[in-house]
This record gives sequence, C-alpha cells and structure tokens, in this order.
Amino acid sequence: MGLESGSISIGVIGGGQLARMMVPPAIHLGLRISVLAEVEGSSAARAADAVGDYRDPETVYAFADTVDVVTFDHEHVPGEILRELERRGKAVHPRPDALQYAQDKILMREKLGELGVPVPAWAAVADEAELQRFIDEHGGRAVVKTARGGYDGKGVRVVSQADEVRDWFTALAEDGRGGRLLVEELVDFVRELSQLVARRPSGESRTWPVVETIQRDGVCAEVIAPAPVANPETLDEAARIGAAVAEGVRVTGVLAVEMFETRDGRVLVNELAMRPHNSGHFSIEGSVTSQFEQHLRAVADLPLGDTSMTAPAAVMVNVLGGPEEGPMPVRYTTVLAEHSRAKVHSYDKQPRPGRKVGHVTVTGDDLEAVLAEARAAAEAFA
Amino acid sequence: MGLESGSISIGVIGGGQLARMMVPPAIHLGLRISVLAEVEGSSAARAADAVGDYRDPETVYAFADTVDVVTFDHEHVPGEILRELERRGKAVHPRPDALQYAQDKILMREKLGELGVPVPAWAAVADEAELQRFIDEHGGRAVVKTARGGYDGKGVRVVSQADEVRDWFTALAEDGRGGRLLVEELVDFVRELSQLVARRPSGESRTWPVVETIQRDGVCAEVIAPAPVANPETLDEAARIGAAVAEGVRVTGVLAVEMFETRDGRVLVNELAMRPHNSGHFSIEGSVTSQFEQHLRAVADLPLGDTSMTAPAAVMVNVLGGPEEGPMPVRYTTVLAEHSRAKVHSYDKQPRPGRKVGHVTVTGDDLEAVLAEARAAAEAFA
Repeated sequence: MGLESGSISIGVIGGGQLARMMVPPAIHLGLRISVLAEVEGSSAARAADAVGDYRDPETVYAFADTVDVVTFDHEHVPGEILRELERRGKAVHPRPDALQYAQDKILMREKLGELGVPVPAWAAVADEAELQRFIDEHGGRAVVKTARGGYDGKGVRVVSQADEVRDWFTALAEDGRGGRLLVEELVDFVRELSQLVARRPSGESRTWPVVETIQRDGVCAEVIAPAPVANPETLDEAARIGAAVAEGVRVTGVLAVEMFETRDGRVLVNELAMRPHNSGHFSIEGSVTSQFEQHLRAVADLPLGDTSMTAPAAVMVNVLGGPEEGPMPVRYTTVLAEHSRAKVHSYDKQPRPGRKVGHVTVTGDDLEAVLAEARAAAEAFA
Repeated sequence: MGLESGSISIGVIGGGQLARMMVPPAIHLGLRISVLAEVEGSSAARAADAVGDYRDPETVYAFADTVDVVTFDHEHVPGEILRELERRGKAVHPRPDALQYAQDKILMREKLGELGVPVPAWAAVADEAELQRFIDEHGGRAVVKTARGGYDGKGVRVVSQADEVRDWFTALAEDGRGGRLLVEELVDFVRELSQLVARRPSGESRTWPVVETIQRDGVCAEVIAPAPVANPETLDEAARIGAAVAEGVRVTGVLAVEMFETRDGRVLVNELAMRPHNSGHFSIEGSVTSQFEQHLRAVADLPLGDTSMTAPAAVMVNVLGGPEEGPMPVRYTTVLAEHSRAKVHSYDKQPRPGRKVGHVTVTGDDLEAVLAEARAAAEAFA
C-alpha cells in the first residue's frame, strides 16, 4: 500500500488566518506545509518555518527553495518576484499571469471586459477632473478604489466630490510610477453573492454552491450557504460568471468571485480574490471538501474533492476585535458552554477594533435556526 | 470581544497519529499544542516541540514545565512519573489514578468487577499450572494477555495449552517485579461494539453513538457509526456500560470502551483506552465534535461539544502498510481522483506490513453506499 502523498511540500507566503487554516487539511492529507510569515507570532505561527519580508526577492527565493509549490495567504507579493521564481522552474500557484488580476483592480476590470463578464460602469482616472466628470455622469456619487493594496474596505471610498480622494492622487503622483484610480458607479444592489471556484493547473475545476455574503462597514460579517434562492436564474448566472472568470484568467487554486445582485436582477462582478476567501470559511464544516483542502489539492495539482454541502444550511459569522481586550477566557468558555453545536475558530490574533480575529460556523437542516445560533454564538464573544 | 482561549497550552506525550490528529482542532480552537515525541520524524512531527524518552522522568518533567495540561497519545508513561507531576501541581489528564486501569489489564478487570460491569470470565494466573486449570475449565481454549504493554493484537494469544505462553511467564519472572498474566474465556461474540465517552475534570460528560468495530488479525479494520441496530436494548446496554465505566474510573479526556456483543444478547467489556481511539476516527467528519477536539476540550476543562452525527452514516476504514512501498503518489492520486467524497487521512508514517498508516472516512445517507465507497477507497491504496 501507499498512503503517502510522496514528497509534495507546499510553501505559503503570508502568515495570516488563511495560511493558518490551510494547516489542518495539510495534516490530514499528509502534505507538508510551511509558511513564510511577516512577523513572529503570526496567526499561522504553528507552521511558520520562516519569517521575513515577502517584498524582498532573496527572502522569497530562499523560502521557495525549501518547497515544491509556492502559494499565498494574500495577493501582495510583487509579480516580478513570482515571475523570476517561475523562470527558475518553481511551481507558483496561482501563476503571476493570473494573480495580476487580483493584484490590480484596473487590470482586472479590463480583463473582465475582454471576457464579456458584466461589471459595474467604471473608469480609470488620472486626476480630479476626470474623476469629477465620472461622478457627474453617474448620479453625483461614485465608489473610488485604489487599484492596488486594498482589502476589507481599505482603499475604498464613496465620494461625491473628486477632492475627497486628493490624498490618493497625491500619493500616486509621489509613487513615481504614475498610476490611476478606479472609479465605479454606485450599484443599487439587493444583496451580495460570492462564487468559489477551485481549478488545477491541468484544468479540472470544481465550484461550491453560490453563497450570500453580508457586509458591515466594508467587512464581511456573515455568509449564508447556499445563498437563499430568490430567483434561480440569478444564482445560475452567478455560477456561470464564476466559472467563466476562473477559466478566463486561468486561475490555479481557489478563486472567489464577489458579485452584486442588482435590484433589476442582474449580476455584476465586484471583486476577485485568488486564494481561500472569507466567503468560503463555511466550507470547513459545511462542505465535503473545504476551500482550504481544495486549495492545497489544486496548487499541488492533485485531483479535486467533492464540493457538496454536508447539510442543507451553513452559516458563518465573523468575530471582530473590540475596543478592549476584556475577560476573554470567560467569554470563550461561555460560548462553548452555551453553543455546543457552534464550531469556534480562533485565529490567535491580538484583538484590535474591527480586526477579524475568528469566526463561528453552524450547520443544520433549518436555515433560520442555523442563522440564529451562529449569530448568538458570535455575539456572545462581543 | 475576546476569542482567545487565553493561555491554555496542552502538551501531548507521544508523537503518533493520535497526537497528530489533535493538532487540527487545536488550531481551530486557538489552543496551543505541543508534543513530546519519541523520535524525530514522528507522525505528529509538525507539533513535535520536544523529542525524548517518556520513560525518563526528567525529560517528562521538563516538557511538562512548558505547558498547562499534560495528556497522552498512548498509555505507556509510568504512573510514578505522572504522580510526581501531580504532586508538583501540574494538571495531568487522564489522571494517573484513572490511567492505571488502562495501563494494567488485571487492575482494570478488578475495577470493572467492583463497578458491577459485565466482563468475560477471567483470572490472573501466576504460572502454567494455574493457566492450564483455567483453560480446562473453560472449554479447552482461552485468551491470554499480558497485563501491560499490549495493543493492536500484540500481547494477546489464543491458546489451548499453557506452555504456548511459556516465554511470557519467563519474561515476567525475569522482570523481578513478579506479576501475572490475564486469562479470559473465549467469548462467542456476534460483533464488537465501542462506546466513546468524554468527561471533564468538573464531571460533565458526553457520549457518541455506539459504533460497530470490525477487527482483522487483532487490528481494527473498519468502524460503522452508528452501529446498525440489531437489538435496541443491546445498544442501550452498551451506552449504559460506557457511561458507568467513565464515571466509575473518573476518567478525564476521551475514553473508549470496547465491548463484545455475545450470541446470547449480552454485552461484555473487552478493553479500555483512555485517549482518542481508532473506533472514534469517524468522528472527524461524522460528528459535530470530533473525539480529538473533545479530548482537548475535556483535558483543558472547557465545555464539551455536541456529539451528534453530521450524517445518518459514517464508515471509517483503516489503511495498513503492505510488504513493499510501491508507487505511492500514483495510488494516492488515484484514490483522490476516483473517490472524491472520501476523506483521506495520512499519518505520514513509513509503511510496514500491518502498520496503520492512515484511514479513509465516508459519510452519507445510505449505509450500504457509504460502506462500499469507504472500502473501495481504502482498497485502492493496497
């Protein structure tokens, strides 16, 4: 017999909770995993075999030498470093040619246009005059985003006057590389959806059910899996778009396509993430194969697992850091005692206001009951 | 808010697959876990922060100093070392006063007798004459077991003549501490059952559904959860016995009570294990709270989780090492490709004939289909 996966070792750049949650499936599958963390004591500390700056080429090359496949906890590793790794013969997934669309929102909008995927009206603007013109043409308000580096509501502002992002234009000018801001129409959406897709280098891909995501203050707060069916055609369209994007950008690993469902029944792509994503945390308990296991299988070019739900409903609620630390062990114990069906996930991060420090998932037959239990458990931490 | 479990750190003595499978739930719960492994490159290598001999007091004391709670991957740590740890104020779970019953089968039989729990007819025999008398009085054949150190069929022989265990009597005599062998009637059983129980120091306990275990060559081969209902009273009796033993020996952590269901409808206790157990591996996917998560919660004296099944049926099949290594990555890939619903668990151990190197679990609605899929997946490794 042979149960060993042989020598496949996976190196994850970035030591946050996504890397942390890749460790359990790596242990079960018998894959070796190691992490290049930015700092000591990171969320994925258990697997952090190296600590260093992912923007430093030599740090990344040295780490990559210790593994078979390089993958990511975030999208911020410079493309030139990753292209050099590929030139040296190292497997990098997602590949830099795909990852660039998650790294640069303007490139992403251009690519989605090429693919014929519906997106909000947008423009890349170089100065305040161009921006003001877009705002005026789109109802007097618009969403401005930095092309690079934003996440969890950072780098996103809703504005009605172009001078509200003067600091960003100034920063772009000082950066020397020039660059533009992305501006988009303010979409009148009824809810947000997310489609997770996993794709192997050899082309095999699997999708999970489309989920509904509920944001608060620009940060994902809750995920309902599968998304309640308001209009089956809308969910089919969301699934079709997710698959088209995965294929179109030739992603390897897990891709999350975040979408708006508009009041008039259209589905528009909002953001892409080329890694396991907050909208897929439900899959740890809610799916036969979680997004974290699937990401490892995909980047190692192993056959993908079944993505069926393990229960009719799964709800994930994020736990955010509050203003003070408080008596944590007491609350933690209370949650375990009062919500014995809730699966508690702690990222072992110092709590700061608004910082994602963990999540809670509940699965079951009845969505209303599952939602109530998940919310109650998450709120008991507050 | 506070999601941190605070500073609870758990130290596991023993670096086998049981310690390995405690790591994923420790990561999710935000508990710190470290392992004292016997050798470098052990199954739980990812968490092995120390390597040393668990029979050496100073090695164990030094390891224990680094953690809040000491627990185990096996039952072989000498009781005198654990009692000294308790004298020094360290939390040890299961406590040595409970663990002794899992360490010494004769003590265990005596204790079960005190508790009024049904067991096969047995005797502790000091020489061949006493053993032969027992054999002759119980149909001419009996099972002889060493009181200490046996597992997976080791230290167990079915004999009809006392001289078939002469080597064991000789070893006992040479050991200097004296000691006796355990002899038991050969039970005419129709199947074997196992009851898992978890119990906290504060007394809270939870049980999983009674499971059926299928042994081959003295080694657990398959587990069916829940045990198919032949006679509901039999399963109730098995559950009652499991709870009585847990309470009676005041176990802390997970306890497995292995039982025979006899042809005449009785349930007799065969063995006890005070740790997560092969008969509970199904619970990783098959239960809301797995035995590994529950063991951590129990030994940390945290509230216990729900033990309901996540699906009507779960089947676990062990994967054993074969005579040669073979093209493992090929077989591994084949299993993943052809059994996308099977959850594959590799222990990252060198395969040797008969050695447990992993397991496969399938869950679903229909027991026959689940059993067929789990067997097919495990056989594809062979």
